[in-house]
Amino acid sequence: MAVYTSVDDAALADFLADYDLGAPLAFKGIAEGVENSNYFLETETGKFILTLFEKRVDARDLPYFIALKRHLAARGFPCPRPVPARDGEALRRLCGRPAVIISFLEGLSPNRPTPGQCREMGAGLARMHAALADFEGQRTNALGPAAWPKLWAGRAGEAEALEAGLAEEIDADLLAIAAARDLTRELPHGTIHADLFPDNAFFVGERFSGVIDFYFACSDVLAYDIAVCLNAWAFEEEPGAPVLQYNYTKGAAFLAGYECERALDPLEKTALPLLARGAALRFFLTRLIDWAETPADALVKPKNPLEYAQRLRFHRHAASAGDYGA
Amino acid sequence: MAVYTSVDDAALADFLADYDLGAPLAFKGIAEGVENSNYFLETETGKFILTLFEKRVDARDLPYFIALKRHLAARGFPCPRPVPARDGEALRRLCGRPAVIISFLEGLSPNRPTPGQCREMGAGLARMHAALADFEGQRTNALGPAAWPKLWAGRAGEAEALEAGLAEEIDADLLAIAAARDLTRELPHGTIHADLFPDNAFFVGERFSGVIDFYFACSDVLAYDIAVCLNAWAFEEEPGAPVLQYNYTKGAAFLAGYECERALDPLEKTALPLLARGAALRFFLTRLIDWAETPADALVKPKNPLEYAQRLRFHRHAASAGDYGA
Repeated sequence: MAVYTSVDDAALADFLADYDLGAPLAFKGIAEGVENSNYFLETETGKFILTLFEKRVDARDLPYFIALKRHLAARGFPCPRPVPARDGEALRRLCGRPAVIISFLEGLSPNRPTPGQCREMGAGLARMHAALADFEGQRTNALGPAAWPKLWAGRAGEAEALEAGLAEEIDADLLAIAAARDLTRELPHGTIHADLFPDNAFFVGERFSGVIDFYFACSDVLAYDIAVCLNAWAFEEEPGAPVLQYNYTKGAAFLAGYECERALDPLEKTALPLLARGAALRFFLTRLIDWAETPADALVKPKNPLEYAQRLRFHRHAASAGDYGA
Repeated sequence: MAVYTSVDDAALADFLADYDLGAPLAFKGIAEGVENSNYFLETETGKFILTLFEKRVDARDLPYFIALKRHLAARGFPCPRPVPARDGEALRRLCGRPAVIISFLEGLSPNRPTPGQCREMGAGLARMHAALADFEGQRTNALGPAAWPKLWAGRAGEAEALEAGLAEEIDADLLAIAAARDLTRELPHGTIHADLFPDNAFFVGERFSGVIDFYFACSDVLAYDIAVCLNAWAFEEEPGAPVLQYNYTKGAAFLAGYECERALDPLEKTALPLLARGAALRFFLTRLIDWAETPADALVKPKNPLEYAQRLRFHRHAASAGDYGA
């Protein structure tokens, strides 16, 4: 949530000399994105975002992300469109970092999505999957099931420190997921977003207006994207409840929206509780690592991993896709 | 350089319900301003900045700052115009803080202003002084000459730690300034910006497009504003020079631009070296305090006070306004 690399007016003018965007009219660092520096840029020809990629993003992945956004934009799916310079190349360098100008997307991210927004997002996700069906790029999910045992190794003590009994639960989750490896292999695969939280989605009022931040996108099970979204869009605090609750109305709205555009096959429905459990585990593990490795006096407080332990308890007891509203 | 108060989409919608600005289309925290939280806001009717005032700004001063910007905007001077809600009131509350929506100003801040930009800024400052000639608001300069001995008290050791001999020089500056108290009392007074650094000025190319950040504005000597600007706009690093150099071309351009709009009277010219010395002292002292009171491991590094000790040495040897290019 910061600007890590400072770009001054002279550096910007040099950079823009390679584009046909006209003179800059406004340029402001924006507090968005944990891994990159982002600037709001207005020129004589329109509004854009300038992104500089900081060290946490692997520069070898950048052509994949840019090709993916170009593909989606060409199919009419609302996402930031990489803007090529005069030589046709969108991925460039600025202040010693890889940099790209993307089109500015209208909309606001919902803090607590409404059922109507969940339905719109479900339909939007299905349209995104369809638009990516002929995308040829491939990228392994670096935070997929194969990585989870490695993320968990040696962290049982940290989990127990958060809540007694948690480590044993996580061990059982990993066993259940490993046992289902053959099932997930048979599920429809494709290109997924893998991090489609509400803060990566834009709405104008109730209308879905676009998706941003594709830096976890990868080749994986399509229904895993749905599982991530059910965790991110349908769990919430409710007055008087000590733990996060699954909002059945919102989950059902999301699934109904998705199925308007692409019907889930029976195998995907069968796998849904396990995929939701896996998605919750993935965010539990990465949060646990951030939690343990962030100094106590750090300015940016890590998010509490226990929010995902609460979701995991719901998923362990879900018997079928019907429990999610499908 | 951060967003201290998080405003979500629901809080924004509630807040905007009191305005006639239409629905929000974009809303992004911007990394601007040390004391406030700022958001870029686009609605169906235009582009704005939403500012939430954090604790470092005295809420009792806010009506003065807002009246000042309204006055300037009404006179056609380019600055952010406070946007009133439907009840006519621009100063409101949001997330427990005083908040205001201001119009969005086009332009970029120059990192190293050109002589042409210095000339434009000089003319712009004179127009600002003229536009404020009939502004009735009054505010004491809390960081004016009366405050400097208090800011300096007990800090001789910190100055000596930065550079041996510095404390004695500062003592002499304070004596010289105190001795000239009668002279400064006779100078033309008015409403001044008092912090017009290049990052508070916008340009589209070489053309001056506006001034922002009036949170040090006050009633004081008009030529003191010029003195602040000469320090901020005309000193720079030069290849091979161990200390900051006064760029005579830029200083002369600034003064010529100012005098195109308002001729300095002989007394103001006489006082210019002393006012420039006072302005450098003011920024030396506040930087010395920030330097001494910021923990060594803080995320935001304070600016080095010695940059102002270098400026002070130039001003001590300046004999007349001619040394600045007037």
